[in-house]
Amino acid sequence: MQKPAISSIPLQETIANRWSGRAYDAAKKVSQEQIIALLEAARWAPSCYGDQPWRLMVWDKHQNEQAWQQAFECLVLGNQAWVKDAPVLMLSCANTVFGHNNQPNRWAQYDTGAAAENLCLQATDLGLMAHQMGGFNADKAREEFAIPSQYTPMAMVSIGYPADIATVTGEALTREMTERKRKALGELFFAGAWGKPIQE
Amino acid sequence: MQKPAISSIPLQETIANRWSGRAYDAAKKVSQEQIIALLEAARWAPSCYGDQPWRLMVWDKHQNEQAWQQAFECLVLGNQAWVKDAPVLMLSCANTVFGHNNQPNRWAQYDTGAAAENLCLQATDLGLMAHQMGGFNADKAREEFAIPSQYTPMAMVSIGYPADIATVTGEALTREMTERKRKALGELFFAGAWGKPIQE
Repeated sequence: MQKPAISSIPLQETIANRWSGRAYDAAKKVSQEQIIALLEAARWAPSCYGDQPWRLMVWDKHQNEQAWQQAFECLVLGNQAWVKDAPVLMLSCANTVFGHNNQPNRWAQYDTGAAAENLCLQATDLGLMAHQMGGFNADKAREEFAIPSQYTPMAMVSIGYPADIATVTGEALTREMTERKRKALGELFFAGAWGKPIQE
Repeated sequence: MQKPAISSIPLQETIANRWSGRAYDAAKKVSQEQIIALLEAARWAPSCYGDQPWRLMVWDKHQNEQAWQQAFECLVLGNQAWVKDAPVLMLSCANTVFGHNNQPNRWAQYDTGAAAENLCLQATDLGLMAHQMGGFNADKAREEFAIPSQYTPMAMVSIGYPADIATVTGEALTREMTERKRKALGELFFAGAWGKPIQE
């Protein structure tokens, strides 16, 4: 299934087609070359002072099922219900301290979000689907994987080939069927003054 | 000038070509339709609970020069030196409070970073150049534009058509000429365990 963005003006194709679906093809592997392509996309995101505060942990079920399972169990149950078929999991983390001066980096999370978006778009371009989740136990992830305190776990990401929507059930199916929605342009974007809609 | 990403595997074209350059063509306007396309791209980014915490203020020099100037003066001098030729400025802000429950949104900055990256990529796709900056006075911006306390100013963005590199001088020119660099894949991305390089 495709659920392209419904925009007033056509968007760049990859941006339009990126979508956080829930139906994964459990039979299709993601190759190591594809994983590297996703990470290269994240790597080339922009960042404040060029600090590149993003770090990504990668778990490939076909390379190390036990480690994948350990990551999987950090997810909330509602996400486990459909993530189970995704062959690759990742966790994005933000380095909260600047490398050049050891001071707090207030753009650490912002820049990490940009890198993760690049990764999701690259996945779309490769015919894969990446779905980011805030629904995971960050404390558990930190403990299980010994994530140093200077790094903040931000989002788990499921990655794999999309499958027919018939492979998901229950709440996940309902969400798959729901129309994609966004706030109106004028609610989000302001012309010259705070709160003045860019478009009526 | 183009400075595509130097990646071990070819990237989706827009991701590869996005670059935060400093040479803007002062004579070429950005159309209102292009501005809307950029905002649509930001609008369709993913977000936790679909909250869409991003807000963007937009200043178009050709629509309201006085407001553009007011935004411009929030930039540090080093940025003013080259931003002067960019016809459009924006400011990304993160809504720190979830709409659905009025609780703090710990993904507000992360998701806003994703939306801003979509905007930069859409700009690349339109032949424009968007350059995000942390170098601005956020307190001044908040005061000048009455930004409510629940929103955190994250990045100023300059937008316009790229110009010949000969139009910039001094420190900005040096930066334009410097090769783009990123940390090694293995420094940023880990296989299964924290700190274990994805690639040697």
